[in-house]
Amino acid sequence: MSRRKRQKRRTPPGAPPGTLVADPSAPKPVISVMAYGGDGCSEEVIRDVNDVRGYLPRWPVTWINVDGLGDVQTISQLADVLGLHRLAVEDTVNTHQRAKVEHYPNHLFMVAHMATCNEHLETEQVSLFLGKSFVVTFQAGQPGDPFNPVRERIRHAVGGIRQSGADHLAYCLIDAVIDGYFPVLETIGERLEELEDEIIGHPTGRTSARIHEIKRNLMTLRRTVWPLREAMNSLMRDPNPLVSDETRLFLRDCYDHTVRVIDFIETYRELGSDLMDLYLSRVSQRMTEVMKVLTIIATIFIPLTFISSIYGMNFHTDRSPWNMPELTWYLGYPLALGLMAMMALGMLYYFRRKGWLGSPDESPRPPTPPDQGGKPFDPTDTQGR
Amino acid sequence: MSRRKRQKRRTPPGAPPGTLVADPSAPKPVISVMAYGGDGCSEEVIRDVNDVRGYLPRWPVTWINVDGLGDVQTISQLADVLGLHRLAVEDTVNTHQRAKVEHYPNHLFMVAHMATCNEHLETEQVSLFLGKSFVVTFQAGQPGDPFNPVRERIRHAVGGIRQSGADHLAYCLIDAVIDGYFPVLETIGERLEELEDEIIGHPTGRTSARIHEIKRNLMTLRRTVWPLREAMNSLMRDPNPLVSDETRLFLRDCYDHTVRVIDFIETYRELGSDLMDLYLSRVSQRMTEVMKVLTIIATIFIPLTFISSIYGMNFHTDRSPWNMPELTWYLGYPLALGLMAMMALGMLYYFRRKGWLGSPDESPRPPTPPDQGGKPFDPTDTQGR
Amino acid sequence: MSRRKRQKRRTPPGAPPGTLVADPSAPKPVISVMAYGGDGCSEEVIRDVNDVRGYLPRWPVTWINVDGLGDVQTISQLADVLGLHRLAVEDTVNTHQRAKVEHYPNHLFMVAHMATCNEHLETEQVSLFLGKSFVVTFQAGQPGDPFNPVRERIRHAVGGIRQSGADHLAYCLIDAVIDGYFPVLETIGERLEELEDEIIGHPTGRTSARIHEIKRNLMTLRRTVWPLREAMNSLMRDPNPLVSDETRLFLRDCYDHTVRVIDFIETYRELGSDLMDLYLSRVSQRMTEVMKVLTIIATIFIPLTFISSIYGMNFHTDRSPWNMPELTWYLGYPLALGLMAMMALGMLYYFRRKGWLGSPDESPRPPTPPDQGGKPFDPTDTQGR
Amino acid sequence: MSRRKRQKRRTPPGAPPGTLVADPSAPKPVISVMAYGGDGCSEEVIRDVNDVRGYLPRWPVTWINVDGLGDVQTISQLADVLGLHRLAVEDTVNTHQRAKVEHYPNHLFMVAHMATCNEHLETEQVSLFLGKSFVVTFQAGQPGDPFNPVRERIRHAVGGIRQSGADHLAYCLIDAVIDGYFPVLETIGERLEELEDEIIGHPTGRTSARIHEIKRNLMTLRRTVWPLREAMNSLMRDPNPLVSDETRLFLRDCYDHTVRVIDFIETYRELGSDLMDLYLSRVSQRMTEVMKVLTIIATIFIPLTFISSIYGMNFHTDRSPWNMPELTWYLGYPLALGLMAMMALGMLYYFRRKGWLGSPDESPRPPTPPDQGGKPFDPTDTQGR
Amino acid sequence: MSRRKRQKRRTPPGAPPGTLVADPSAPKPVISVMAYGGDGCSEEVIRDVNDVRGYLPRWPVTWINVDGLGDVQTISQLADVLGLHRLAVEDTVNTHQRAKVEHYPNHLFMVAHMATCNEHLETEQVSLFLGKSFVVTFQAGQPGDPFNPVRERIRHAVGGIRQSGADHLAYCLIDAVIDGYFPVLETIGERLEELEDEIIGHPTGRTSARIHEIKRNLMTLRRTVWPLREAMNSLMRDPNPLVSDETRLFLRDCYDHTVRVIDFIETYRELGSDLMDLYLSRVSQRMTEVMKVLTIIATIFIPLTFISSIYGMNFHTDRSPWNMPELTWYLGYPLALGLMAMMALGMLYYFRRKGWLGSPDESPRPPTPPDQGGKPFDPTDTQGR
Repeated sequence: MSRRKRQKRRTPPGAPPGTLVADPSAPKPVISVMAYGGDGCSEEVIRDVNDVRGYLPRWPVTWINVDGLGDVQTISQLADVLGLHRLAVEDTVNTHQRAKVEHYPNHLFMVAHMATCNEHLETEQVSLFLGKSFVVTFQAGQPGDPFNPVRERIRHAVGGIRQSGADHLAYCLIDAVIDGYFPVLETIGERLEELEDEIIGHPTGRTSARIHEIKRNLMTLRRTVWPLREAMNSLMRDPNPLVSDETRLFLRDCYDHTVRVIDFIETYRELGSDLMDLYLSRVSQRMTEVMKVLTIIATIFIPLTFISSIYGMNFHTDRSPWNMPELTWYLGYPLALGLMAMMALGMLYYFRRKGWLGSPDESPRPPTPPDQGGKPFDPTDTQGR
Repeated sequence: MSRRKRQKRRTPPGAPPGTLVADPSAPKPVISVMAYGGDGCSEEVIRDVNDVRGYLPRWPVTWINVDGLGDVQTISQLADVLGLHRLAVEDTVNTHQRAKVEHYPNHLFMVAHMATCNEHLETEQVSLFLGKSFVVTFQAGQPGDPFNPVRERIRHAVGGIRQSGADHLAYCLIDAVIDGYFPVLETIGERLEELEDEIIGHPTGRTSARIHEIKRNLMTLRRTVWPLREAMNSLMRDPNPLVSDETRLFLRDCYDHTVRVIDFIETYRELGSDLMDLYLSRVSQRMTEVMKVLTIIATIFIPLTFISSIYGMNFHTDRSPWNMPELTWYLGYPLALGLMAMMALGMLYYFRRKGWLGSPDESPRPPTPPDQGGKPFDPTDTQGR
Repeated sequence: MSRRKRQKRRTPPGAPPGTLVADPSAPKPVISVMAYGGDGCSEEVIRDVNDVRGYLPRWPVTWINVDGLGDVQTISQLADVLGLHRLAVEDTVNTHQRAKVEHYPNHLFMVAHMATCNEHLETEQVSLFLGKSFVVTFQAGQPGDPFNPVRERIRHAVGGIRQSGADHLAYCLIDAVIDGYFPVLETIGERLEELEDEIIGHPTGRTSARIHEIKRNLMTLRRTVWPLREAMNSLMRDPNPLVSDETRLFLRDCYDHTVRVIDFIETYRELGSDLMDLYLSRVSQRMTEVMKVLTIIATIFIPLTFISSIYGMNFHTDRSPWNMPELTWYLGYPLALGLMAMMALGMLYYFRRKGWLGSPDESPRPPTPPDQGGKPFDPTDTQGR
Repeated sequence: MSRRKRQKRRTPPGAPPGTLVADPSAPKPVISVMAYGGDGCSEEVIRDVNDVRGYLPRWPVTWINVDGLGDVQTISQLADVLGLHRLAVEDTVNTHQRAKVEHYPNHLFMVAHMATCNEHLETEQVSLFLGKSFVVTFQAGQPGDPFNPVRERIRHAVGGIRQSGADHLAYCLIDAVIDGYFPVLETIGERLEELEDEIIGHPTGRTSARIHEIKRNLMTLRRTVWPLREAMNSLMRDPNPLVSDETRLFLRDCYDHTVRVIDFIETYRELGSDLMDLYLSRVSQRMTEVMKVLTIIATIFIPLTFISSIYGMNFHTDRSPWNMPELTWYLGYPLALGLMAMMALGMLYYFRRKGWLGSPDESPRPPTPPDQGGKPFDPTDTQGR
Repeated sequence: MSRRKRQKRRTPPGAPPGTLVADPSAPKPVISVMAYGGDGCSEEVIRDVNDVRGYLPRWPVTWINVDGLGDVQTISQLADVLGLHRLAVEDTVNTHQRAKVEHYPNHLFMVAHMATCNEHLETEQVSLFLGKSFVVTFQAGQPGDPFNPVRERIRHAVGGIRQSGADHLAYCLIDAVIDGYFPVLETIGERLEELEDEIIGHPTGRTSARIHEIKRNLMTLRRTVWPLREAMNSLMRDPNPLVSDETRLFLRDCYDHTVRVIDFIETYRELGSDLMDLYLSRVSQRMTEVMKVLTIIATIFIPLTFISSIYGMNFHTDRSPWNMPELTWYLGYPLALGLMAMMALGMLYYFRRKGWLGSPDESPRPPTPPDQGGKPFDPTDTQGR
């Protein structure tokens, strides 16, 4: 059961601060620039970092998106062009940061994570710099780009986005990242429901491992989203001239979504723990049932076998009238069988009184389907935003 | 075990803020207007949203109740007529919000949830706008309207409600929503008591699933009510010219009820966990009892069967005096039976000394009924408000 | 297992605030007045509420105690006479409030609960109004009055109570209510000790239900006392002209007692959970022991029975020299017995090596009595106040 | 299993505040006075409380230590002589207080507990009054006095203690009390290590009761030390003219020790819970192992016995060629034995494939000793202070 | 299973504050001095403490590293030379302090712990004094020095370290200590993954002890790092002229790392608890499986053996036509065999319907490898810094 080898991209302990260490296996950066204003929109993939200089003064808002972190040289050039702080750039390249917002003299730096859940849960660090007239975003360049809907809105000038400033663009991008958590939570919610049905129906040996995997994923999500909440709160409240009051109003909405995501994660985590308990109780229950079958069969037949083995003994009946005279009785055999039958019936009566027979808890439970259907609101419900 | 398919009403990630997406299967909105003042009361179901304009200046308080969220057009017209903020209206239509209070320039927006528990727990979002002389409420239009008692009080001018302003009406509506939780908690409390009796009496295989379902419901309730508490606190404390000091005094009462609801939910959650523990201990206990029966029967009869099988061996007694001379003894058979009886009695003595016989823990527990009855205060007690 | 039917005294959802709904089965109120000052003391049970008016101006302190809440009319008359707020009076009659302190313009309202634990835990709401020169207390009128010692102190002018004001009387009454928790906690502590001994000694099938009942009672107590702590804190700290600084010093003592009660409740709750764990581990342990006995007996005798059954087979020894020649050997039978004895001894040796024999853990534990005695301080110790 | 009867020393509910109730079985107080200054030191055991008056004006610091609380008369005389507040004195005599610091007009009152753990954990209340030039300490007078090292330091003028004021003496005494927790924690730590070894090695039936006892002791310690932390914090921070700034610096050290004690208690509590889990998992594991042995033996021999019992049937072979012709075959017996051997081998192969044979988890674990030794830092390590 | 005896280095309770007690077995101190500035760097191991005096005025920054705490004399001389406070020096020698930052008049004192995890987890106290132009560090002198990379940076003047002041050096040293936790966490994460695979694959009897050991190590780490976070926070925020604003910016980075370490520890702790649950559920599952095999075999063969034993009885068929006439039937034997076969098939059908046969949960799980591989982000992932 081999797992993917993790790349060791960590800066070595004791390295000077601001050291940039690129992951050699990471894809090379692709820099795309999107600049727009009330009267137009320009889009280009650039090769030379210095081309950025041409955009900044010309357009009200310039959005530079860097996809792939495999070339430290390019990234530090870009940082120089835009005046980004070296500590922030280091955090961009070493993609294992907690979500956070940091206020630097002439820009604002934010780290968040986006999550996707196709077959497995994957998270990817997104770094965002907000300047007076620019936004820079860095992604690790893996498949799936959450920013496409925002690009479309800029291209088609939907919802007044072109009239708004760079802070509004930053809000839109953060909002897209956070909204990306909801489909992930829906997938997890569905898996939890499947597991719940499986446990109540036919728990197997793999069920516990599956519950464990979901709990593990939720742990990862939690570690990702909790600091994001703090970051959003700080972004919404801390005074910063780069963020206008109107954008703060929108960020409040964004913060609400983060809180909802956390609500779901916490509810699912509890649900996961409850499912593990339920699983354990079901396994115990099944064990008891297995033991009951064994006990019923064994305690009925073992005494019977004992009786029949007595009459299988070879004492010489001709030597003594005390030696197994039953063997020579006219009704010896029917009486022996009758004795056995009575013992068996006595046992059965005892088990029935104990309630061990009939096992009603394994019946197909006809009233359940309506009982489970029609549940119009449940903790695994994540629609809406 | 199919569950109700959940409607996917969530705004897609990356959509512009304020996008209204209606659930096509939701019922069409029915708008009823109730306007009143010290000297009268008028009630009408309107078709055209613009009819609302006629009420606002004429009556001290106008209450517009919208039942059903299936038509985005109508709702956004109404929002335009009353000047409601588009972010708040979006939250009204996407009915998966956390309870909250938001202060907008000329109105106050509140989201809460009401709960009903007939066969299953159901929750429904209620949105409320409080303006200077109006209150607007939005419900999803499902059966059951918690506002009827308030309507009756307005119609019959009970308790001075007609002399009070829109903020008092808002308080009455919120109070009705919160008080609706108490019957739900009573139902859950009764189910927990039934389960407790069942576990102590005759736990079955479905008991654990039923405990799990209640815990799940309590999780849902908890996720619904915790933010409501914060919202009530904010409503009660944050300064807002729309809420008078006298209404704040009433809201304190309302806040107290929310806290009581949370107290019950938390107590029930703990009780649910304790019941799961109790169930597990009962299952273990029963298993031990099953095993004891098996062990007693098997350890008594297996050695006896061994002895009788020895005398069932066919060694030729005529070849040697050493070959099973017992078979030819005058008292061979009675001695063999006596040996077996002694072994059985020895075993029984051993089990009695171990305390495995008599199983006093399954006796019908005569002292219990007085012990359980007469419990005058218990955590499953939710009356009063 | 029928439980006492709970009275439905709850105000229906949507009722106007301040609605008084009496429990028809509640006892009728008995109003006793006790008025005192530095120079005397007068005591009377009054029939007409208006008699109260005579006391107020004449005595420095008038204490009106209402026992029984069955007559709404009387109670609301009394409230009118003394100017008590209708919301507070509603909370007095609907006896399912959380403990709290509310400051009204000319009086202070407090709700607390007293607990008694004879056979079962019972709690009863006590409401207290403190005015400038009067104290009003409301009890549900069930047996047991915690205020008797205070009455005695007033009658015999013990400890300077007659020289102090109404706030000191209120303190004395609250103190009596809180001190009433200690005997209850002592009872629970003793039951926990009994259970601990029972679990270590001879756990039965009812043990888990008894632990569960204690945990349930502690849950009730906890829900009762936690808000009391907040209330005491608010009473002690919030400025109010009705409470003098000297009384605040005494209230600090009172608050300390509440904190101690909570300490005990939390410790007992943990102890209850630990006992459940201990019980489960003991049940597992006993199960293992039962299984060991079964395994030892069965694994010794089943192979032996197999051997003897082999020589019980009826192959015709006269047809072939290969057909069970052992049966005709001179020492066949002794050799067969010897083989069986060797197998049994081998098994016993194996079990001894595994440590399954001798079971030292069930020995009567002679060193334990000194080990348990002499424990001079333990978490179930609640003396002192 | 009788426990020591606890003395009921609690003041009855409803008693007036400041009531002193002595425990009749408590030892009579022994009052020793130690007075010192830069130029000398005087030590005496006094009989008459009024002798104290002679010391106070003569010496810079007078330390009065009262050992035994059995005589209320003496204690209240002493309180009068020194002007101690009656509420504080009540808390001194009723030795079941939480640790606390109370500021009275002309003295400071502190309650703490010292712990000793010889065979059992014992805690004893220590009360301390700090005045301008005196310190009074009250102990219950049980064996073991933590203050002896401080006495020695005063006698031999070690570490400048004679030059410091009463507040420094109070610090030294509190420090001695707190440092007394470390040996107790070391003892508990050692017991936890022993238990850990026992559980991994040979868990017995008493192991769970021993873990439970340690958890109980830790609960007691916790309830004792948590309020002590708050008290130390208040002592260190709250302004009080009786405590100099230099002493506060030392008290910070003292506070640090309290925090370390709490750290250890919490770690040990968790370790205790983990050990209970480990114990349960070991018991489960052993049970599985026991069951495996039973299953292997029974499933091998039960089918074999069945086969041999078939050939023990007495069908008359002479009546029909179909009646057990095997019995008359030339190789009937060897073939039957061969069939049995094959079945047994098949079973063994099945068990080996399942991994039930060989049980490597019970091997003597040779790599473990180096694995456990040399653990240079572990949570049960409490040295240093 | 002997563990390393722990040295008792603790100052005895009641000792005067500031008492230095050396551990006699500790290595003797080796004092190395490194002094540098913008224009050079000097490095020396000194014998005489007074040599330090020569460095201080000459170089902008002097770093004195003391390796080994075995000689109290030397250390207290050094403290005198540099003016270090005696309480701080006591905490340096008694190496069982919590991480903390203390502000003394002319220097700042910090305690932290570094962790290494070769075969076992080891932690070692590092004490650091920061003065105006010097940094003093104390280590216990065990192998492994986390400061080597910093030395290299000074020697080669990497990253502007030589131009910065003593506070920057202190930051670099603390950063090196904190970064040292990441490799430790990686090791623990890998062990947790191994355990997870082991539990899902083939849990053995040692698995639970291994989980327990990891949880124990995490407890130690947690106790070490939580106070470090507080210390870092205090260092970063509390005003102190010795720490410049620029260094504070770097310390924020350092604080972030501490928070990340705590995040990992908490996640791993939860994962450890989840693994214990998973282990228990797997053991239960295996037990059920073992029991199923026993039950299937026993319940099939025990009734068959009973039947064959009936026909092994020796009733005399010649005495009565009722005595076992089957034995003389022409097809008696085949009919008996047929009866047995039918019973066996009936049992098998019953077990199949119960789902006890086929045990799909033990199949080699082919779809799992892709399911486990490719997990690109998981809670055991600690790279990056």
